[in-house]
Amino acid sequence: MAAANKRNIFYAQSGGPTAVINATACGVIETARAQRDYFGKVYAGKNGILGALAEELIDTSKESAATIAALRHTPASAFGSCRYKLQSIENKRAEFERLIEVCAAHNIGYFLYNGGNDSQDTSHKIATVSQQLGYPMQCIGLPKTIDNDLVMTDNCPGFGSVAKYVAVATREAGLDVASMHASSTKVFILEVMGRHAGWIAAATGLANQTRDLPPHIILFPELAFNATAFINKVKQCVQRYGYCVIAASEGVRDSKGRFLTNSGTTDAFGHVQLGGMAPYLAALIKTKLGYKYHWAVADYLQRAAAHIASKTDNEQAYAIGRAGVLAARAGKNAVMMSIQRRASKKYTWQVGTVPLAKIANREKTVPRRFISKDGFGITQACRDYIEPLIIGESYPAYKGGIPQYAQLKNILVKKKLKA
Amino acid sequence: MAAANKRNIFYAQSGGPTAVINATACGVIETARAQRDYFGKVYAGKNGILGALAEELIDTSKESAATIAALRHTPASAFGSCRYKLQSIENKRAEFERLIEVCAAHNIGYFLYNGGNDSQDTSHKIATVSQQLGYPMQCIGLPKTIDNDLVMTDNCPGFGSVAKYVAVATREAGLDVASMHASSTKVFILEVMGRHAGWIAAATGLANQTRDLPPHIILFPELAFNATAFINKVKQCVQRYGYCVIAASEGVRDSKGRFLTNSGTTDAFGHVQLGGMAPYLAALIKTKLGYKYHWAVADYLQRAAAHIASKTDNEQAYAIGRAGVLAARAGKNAVMMSIQRRASKKYTWQVGTVPLAKIANREKTVPRRFISKDGFGITQACRDYIEPLIIGESYPAYKGGIPQYAQLKNILVKKKLKA
Repeated sequence: MAAANKRNIFYAQSGGPTAVINATACGVIETARAQRDYFGKVYAGKNGILGALAEELIDTSKESAATIAALRHTPASAFGSCRYKLQSIENKRAEFERLIEVCAAHNIGYFLYNGGNDSQDTSHKIATVSQQLGYPMQCIGLPKTIDNDLVMTDNCPGFGSVAKYVAVATREAGLDVASMHASSTKVFILEVMGRHAGWIAAATGLANQTRDLPPHIILFPELAFNATAFINKVKQCVQRYGYCVIAASEGVRDSKGRFLTNSGTTDAFGHVQLGGMAPYLAALIKTKLGYKYHWAVADYLQRAAAHIASKTDNEQAYAIGRAGVLAARAGKNAVMMSIQRRASKKYTWQVGTVPLAKIANREKTVPRRFISKDGFGITQACRDYIEPLIIGESYPAYKGGIPQYAQLKNILVKKKLKA
Repeated sequence: MAAANKRNIFYAQSGGPTAVINATACGVIETARAQRDYFGKVYAGKNGILGALAEELIDTSKESAATIAALRHTPASAFGSCRYKLQSIENKRAEFERLIEVCAAHNIGYFLYNGGNDSQDTSHKIATVSQQLGYPMQCIGLPKTIDNDLVMTDNCPGFGSVAKYVAVATREAGLDVASMHASSTKVFILEVMGRHAGWIAAATGLANQTRDLPPHIILFPELAFNATAFINKVKQCVQRYGYCVIAASEGVRDSKGRFLTNSGTTDAFGHVQLGGMAPYLAALIKTKLGYKYHWAVADYLQRAAAHIASKTDNEQAYAIGRAGVLAARAGKNAVMMSIQRRASKKYTWQVGTVPLAKIANREKTVPRRFISKDGFGITQACRDYIEPLIIGESYPAYKGGIPQYAQLKNILVKKKLKA
């Protein structure tokens, strides 16, 4: 075989999708294709790491250049993703050994894993085991998460686009409520993702480029919910502006750290209610103040919204993929690519590398200094941090009125091992 | 006064906003400004018809040409809207007389009312009363509604943009679920507006440009909900595709015509639950099939989404405003501007006029022939009708990462009457 001396790349997507994770895939594949002198093929894990364990490897060389280019603007995880965390090496050594066995069978010399905190931890463990087993494989982590909670990187690809989506949505819905409040809706609540970190909730604050515009209240998972203070603030806003727009993280908690929506209330069928922070708050406001309300839950719409992706985010996601391949060629191992903000007035950035050992199992939440004194807004420091990440539009191509997203063939490589 | 012989135009926005109702306002104001030889000023009702009753008239001549041009891409109702229906002439003659009195005090000769069914009815009544009172005023209806339920017009400005929004959202969220279903979410439900007419729900079907793509199930308010058939279909989809994407109108009803979400279930605070079709269906699926689910409620996000407005819709909205002013100059009265589809293979349209008397209090719902045999999808005829309305993108300008929407001064004309 001609490619026998050139080793293949394994690439997998992990956890919840983003609007730009496929831009990272595009960066990986296009860069590897441009360096055919050095790299073999790029194999993508079908449904993430599960594909590596099941020997279900997608042969990306079967896709045309045009299809790979279209990945750049296609949301979600084109090769499938998973929620699956490898356990500790001690408990599940066989799983790691199986993974190395699959890589060896397919001449994989580079393991590129695109995900959040858990995935960086996994990459680190795989690097450790392959070294212990004497199997030569370079493990490189590619950051991805809408939650922006990874440490050792200024921000995470995926966050800028969801931040832009929620800021735009808050601005637009805010105008709607402003139009109607004289004779109708007084309160509007937008529920956004971010169960443990309030970065997405914080980003809604960018809708407010002028004083007194929505959102009037932001609720962060970092601060314990104070119902009295909240209700007073809603009342104040309605008295002052005529209406009140609230952006709430799905992860708002009470003073004991319990999710508000998980405090024993039940849904229509008697199940404990999970999710639904917006309707919970709406009902609270209705009970205490009697205002007419509307609420929205953006859910997957916010993280899949490639139609309004941030250009900066898209460029960073691509650059992370490209840099990962170049780092592999440069011999790096057990590192994560990271976005580094240069110290300058104008926002500029570059891709660097950080040791995987420093990442695993840490979580970056919104610091108190990014939240206004009353706990219901963002500070200028927070604005200065987030705003550059949502700059620029990165529109997909349209046909028949809807975006033309890449449709992959996802052809599997022939298996060589027993299940 | 120089303009004494030139009569002024009154323009008001009514009911729920859309992504393009301000494009109609832009069409009215720019066209009137271009014909200063004939028309006086354009006065806009503050908060719709309420402004006319309260003599709160916004002087649009105080706004710059650039601000009026920016209205073209600004969502919501820039002059404020209201939910207020004038009653019958018999019951509330004084209200109509007050309205005519305000118009007379401000030399208003043209009454342009931008709204849905109720507003066309109101325009018709005002035309009748002004004639009875011998006050010369031409009343012209400008159609607007996301619900697309007005008769005598092929479609309503505002619908094309919400249709595009929900089709794009369904496509994007559908890709997200497809990515995750192997180890996580199996069912996703998007709740859309349209309490009595299922046009918006139908539009989600445009996301499916290839067989077997989401949405797999659409629920229309026009058809009684059959829980058994629905649950069977969800199960079939999950078995066949691995996942199931559902688009549900907020107005889905049971066989007795009651909204599903209004059937006695209560929220966390003991109130009868209003709204929340998506969480209702999610809980039903969880109970019957146990699948992991996610749901989204787009609410105001869908009708305010100027960032992804349909270019066709935006052009039609502008043309309706422009044509309304030209019809006024041509001496028309008691007519509504309508969008007429020309009979040709390629979609083309023109603006026509229809008598207001034929519009009032009728409602256009989705015909059975537009809904697939099993009741869970759309037919080719439906696709052929809706698709042209979502064609083209009409992007606003951005600054700091978010759209720069018009911010009006909304300066009121000095009052001349007692309250």
